[in-house]
Amino acid sequence: MEDLKTEEILAKAVEALSAAEKAQATAELSAFTTNNLWILIAAAMVFMMHLGFSALEAGFVRKKNVVNILFKNSMIIAIGLLTYWFVGFNLMYPGSNAGGYFAFGGFLLNPPEGGMTAAYADYTYWADFIFQAMFAATGATIVSGAVAGRIKLNSFLIFATLFVAFIYPITGFWKWGAGWLDARGFYDFAGSTIVHSVGGWAALAGIILLGPRSGKYTSKGIKPIPGHSLPLATLGVFLLWFGWYGFNGGSVLSADPELVSLVFTTTSLAAAAGAVGAFVTSYLMSKTHDLSMVLNGILGGLVGITASADAVSVNSAVIIGLIAGVLIPLSVTFFDRIKLDDPVGATSVHLVCGIWGTLAVAIFGNFDEGIGEFSDQLIGIIACGAFAFTLSFLLFYMLKRTIGIRVSAAEEEKGLDIEEHNISAYS
Amino acid sequence: MEDLKTEEILAKAVEALSAAEKAQATAELSAFTTNNLWILIAAAMVFMMHLGFSALEAGFVRKKNVVNILFKNSMIIAIGLLTYWFVGFNLMYPGSNAGGYFAFGGFLLNPPEGGMTAAYADYTYWADFIFQAMFAATGATIVSGAVAGRIKLNSFLIFATLFVAFIYPITGFWKWGAGWLDARGFYDFAGSTIVHSVGGWAALAGIILLGPRSGKYTSKGIKPIPGHSLPLATLGVFLLWFGWYGFNGGSVLSADPELVSLVFTTTSLAAAAGAVGAFVTSYLMSKTHDLSMVLNGILGGLVGITASADAVSVNSAVIIGLIAGVLIPLSVTFFDRIKLDDPVGATSVHLVCGIWGTLAVAIFGNFDEGIGEFSDQLIGIIACGAFAFTLSFLLFYMLKRTIGIRVSAAEEEKGLDIEEHNISAYS
Amino acid sequence: MEDLKTEEILAKAVEALSAAEKAQATAELSAFTTNNLWILIAAAMVFMMHLGFSALEAGFVRKKNVVNILFKNSMIIAIGLLTYWFVGFNLMYPGSNAGGYFAFGGFLLNPPEGGMTAAYADYTYWADFIFQAMFAATGATIVSGAVAGRIKLNSFLIFATLFVAFIYPITGFWKWGAGWLDARGFYDFAGSTIVHSVGGWAALAGIILLGPRSGKYTSKGIKPIPGHSLPLATLGVFLLWFGWYGFNGGSVLSADPELVSLVFTTTSLAAAAGAVGAFVTSYLMSKTHDLSMVLNGILGGLVGITASADAVSVNSAVIIGLIAGVLIPLSVTFFDRIKLDDPVGATSVHLVCGIWGTLAVAIFGNFDEGIGEFSDQLIGIIACGAFAFTLSFLLFYMLKRTIGIRVSAAEEEKGLDIEEHNISAYS
Repeated sequence: MEDLKTEEILAKAVEALSAAEKAQATAELSAFTTNNLWILIAAAMVFMMHLGFSALEAGFVRKKNVVNILFKNSMIIAIGLLTYWFVGFNLMYPGSNAGGYFAFGGFLLNPPEGGMTAAYADYTYWADFIFQAMFAATGATIVSGAVAGRIKLNSFLIFATLFVAFIYPITGFWKWGAGWLDARGFYDFAGSTIVHSVGGWAALAGIILLGPRSGKYTSKGIKPIPGHSLPLATLGVFLLWFGWYGFNGGSVLSADPELVSLVFTTTSLAAAAGAVGAFVTSYLMSKTHDLSMVLNGILGGLVGITASADAVSVNSAVIIGLIAGVLIPLSVTFFDRIKLDDPVGATSVHLVCGIWGTLAVAIFGNFDEGIGEFSDQLIGIIACGAFAFTLSFLLFYMLKRTIGIRVSAAEEEKGLDIEEHNISAYS
Repeated sequence: MEDLKTEEILAKAVEALSAAEKAQATAELSAFTTNNLWILIAAAMVFMMHLGFSALEAGFVRKKNVVNILFKNSMIIAIGLLTYWFVGFNLMYPGSNAGGYFAFGGFLLNPPEGGMTAAYADYTYWADFIFQAMFAATGATIVSGAVAGRIKLNSFLIFATLFVAFIYPITGFWKWGAGWLDARGFYDFAGSTIVHSVGGWAALAGIILLGPRSGKYTSKGIKPIPGHSLPLATLGVFLLWFGWYGFNGGSVLSADPELVSLVFTTTSLAAAAGAVGAFVTSYLMSKTHDLSMVLNGILGGLVGITASADAVSVNSAVIIGLIAGVLIPLSVTFFDRIKLDDPVGATSVHLVCGIWGTLAVAIFGNFDEGIGEFSDQLIGIIACGAFAFTLSFLLFYMLKRTIGIRVSAAEEEKGLDIEEHNISAYS
Repeated sequence: MEDLKTEEILAKAVEALSAAEKAQATAELSAFTTNNLWILIAAAMVFMMHLGFSALEAGFVRKKNVVNILFKNSMIIAIGLLTYWFVGFNLMYPGSNAGGYFAFGGFLLNPPEGGMTAAYADYTYWADFIFQAMFAATGATIVSGAVAGRIKLNSFLIFATLFVAFIYPITGFWKWGAGWLDARGFYDFAGSTIVHSVGGWAALAGIILLGPRSGKYTSKGIKPIPGHSLPLATLGVFLLWFGWYGFNGGSVLSADPELVSLVFTTTSLAAAAGAVGAFVTSYLMSKTHDLSMVLNGILGGLVGITASADAVSVNSAVIIGLIAGVLIPLSVTFFDRIKLDDPVGATSVHLVCGIWGTLAVAIFGNFDEGIGEFSDQLIGIIACGAFAFTLSFLLFYMLKRTIGIRVSAAEEEKGLDIEEHNISAYS
């Protein structure tokens, strides 16, 4: 009877252990499901940013070039997703050559059985792919706005394809694919440099080679060319802000409650402070309440906080955003002074505030020694900038020397919508 | 002492088992909460599709008919939710007559206590209802665009009410309510047939009985009638794409990490490939960069992948989307040749690509024998098409013979906004 | 050997208990993560409401005042977030003086280590902050629309700052910060009174002191001044509806499957019924299909259900929304009769339907005695109304007596866009 009881107790203990293990597995799958779901929802929110960019850029160009912008941006997201599937993802995350400069994991994708893998603690292979794929096209979208109103459509589409397929994933690998910049301690949480300033450098290369829109810089001074629809531009900025919660929040790469909550808060406050910084600065400069500056101030604040959203206090986020907002009117004025014509202010927002945000990591970031130090950040900014600018410049240059990159003066005058698309945006 | 120890160990084992059971229950509730939350968020994203449809259709009609479209689409979502509450949900999910043709679970709703039920492993009664209710109005929205610019408002609202209340839920029951098509092995993941082609058939019935807009098909040929705002149409397509992540992703009916991640990826790539397919095909056909075709190509890709998004490889998704994109300009041209006037291309997108997507299940789907075979899919397409087309035709016909379905030539000329709503969209 | 076995069994039982405790902790963290994630996603959806308000109000004003509205609403969200960070959150949730009238937790924020705290069972400190911060600016946005077309920009921005920083958080404390109204049994789930009617009272104070737009009320009767873009207004309403799933759904303050699912359903059906109520009533009143009324009917239904969305049956939600919809055309007509000019109908939507929704708690709410009774609700409505109206009136009055609140007749005629912003919305 004693022995019988012993056996019973043993069985009970074994049963309990087994039940505990089952509960553990259920709990872990539940946590995995939540983390994975957040990456997917964040991907959908980043997708919304492509609508934000489309609306912003369409609003900031003239009526005669609206269809052209919409066409470009509709194709960019398509091209971005397809090239990332075909080649980009395996360039950016080759799974080898840690600390190196370049590696390639092969064409197309090689998902593990069922899309699950031990390599990802918190999400599936496909969630990883689609979240990163949504980022990939962003850089080309930044260029799209800056070169608006005078670039040839086919040249732009060729550039965008090559930029998204090769340039973006290679610098992306340097940091997020565990390449040499990552090994050096360079820190860029969600891509002030890796996404925004890389796109900004490409935009700069484009506008240098293209030249300004005709009539912009005259002997009588700089002629403002207002956008055709400020409601559309405002809509775009709000959608970008909304999408940024996925862009930054999803870059936590899990639904970690502490970090994602902090990121939502720093992102929000930096955007708000960017609006205020741009409002006050532009008012002091021009004595008017300039909506375009406030809108770009919001975007500047968002770009500025992107490198450090998970690693600064909320008070620091306010300062980072405020300075980004102040930079916007100064930068827009500066680019106009040196006659670099950027119809939507993309270089000011993405390049200037991208650099500022990357440097802000060194000032405000809560890091141990060896991560995000000023020299690391500067090396990252310079390396990515040199690579993206040089290759983009070469690419645009080769296109200029072959099929041409600029429409004729007559076409520009008439508008790209009629010339390239045979239709008007409004009728 | 020995016995005391035995008692202690037993108590410890019992405590452990009880703790394990409690942990299991906590983990299961956590998983349930995540799954349920995803269904709800997906429902909100499907709601966003109604905004997408409104913007798309408003953008594609002429300025004088914009308020009319917005009014129709604002009412459709209201009518759709209310009829689904009153009668539709219990027609589509009567909870009886498995394998059958028709059943009815009674008026209004009979939720279990607290909205929780053993019948749903992953979500509550109310989450199920609201997710399905958001789908219900979609079919009528498809019709709304196709018949734009010449239909009488009250006739349309009567049609939409009856379509959403009866026609959609009955074919819905055949598949998703476990009716006869489901029993036959017909496969339609998120509704290429059950939602999109059913809506497309109703649209076809409407445009046959209505006739084309005056001036569209003349002795001198087909007159293009461009939409009044391509930015609005583009906005609509991007919002539809965004919402489709809820439409397809939510149709997994849980937050299952493998499946939802796969569905997000196949959905994205099919949409992207649809853009490319329509871009290239329309360029070859007309030598212009046609934004409308690219937009409808995106939608075609999305409709095409809807039947199989959880059951094909991502490479297959690219092919499915590409073919759908190619079909768009061919189909639009075809419908114009046979003088069926569809201002927004709804029949090409939802009917043609809906059929294609349903057939694609048989070609690309990873199924065991007996599910999604070609004959099963064909029967589903034909049965749903015959039912939806015939009843919609009869309904429109009866309306035509009684209160009339077409506005007078004078009203059409002047525009529906002034005639039906006494206001212009813009002032 | 017996003893050895006993030790082994004991070890097994201890191991099982420890494993069960670990599983319990994993499961609880998983549940916490899901709940917290929902609060964050809901915050992003509430952010989208600010875009909704911007689009709605921009659509309902004249072309010459569009930039002004967009500028105001872009600044309001920025000001709202920053003042809530600086002072508002600690006024509304001071963490002391339960049952009282006023308390202040100090400037800036004092998050616990890592943002986690035992005080919040279901979400982090930062998730709580950002969700509440998104609510804070809403009240000022309501005012923005009502005073459109004739208010001085700087005066409005000063008012909005003080309103959001002080007036909203104090009445907010009375209920949601566990102040005296909460102690009295006043019930207001997501803010029919605390958010909407408080904003509505402030709007009323503003339009009384400002007077109507010139030319609105003439000796020949009331001149309708139609909005410049009904597509923009419709877009705004759909975005508000979408955001309301976060506003009401997030106000559950967890992802509780029963409650959040119920709230999604009641919110949806009330909005739908609001559309129908306004459609029928306005048709009976004016014999036309009035899109503006349907749009405001949707919003009225949403405001109406906000106080009770978690505490009524779905059938009751239909009735609440229907009555709110009926109230809209009656209220709009009434305010026009008494010559209170509200270009967007904000007082009808937020004040009138906010009051109705708060009273509806007493009629339809599933409460035990002592909560949400008619007298409790009435006291809440009156107290919040008296406080918000009086302080807003004083604030506007002081501004009127100092820097002025109304632009000159010439500026009003020319439009605020040119005068205040030196640009047109469209060019």
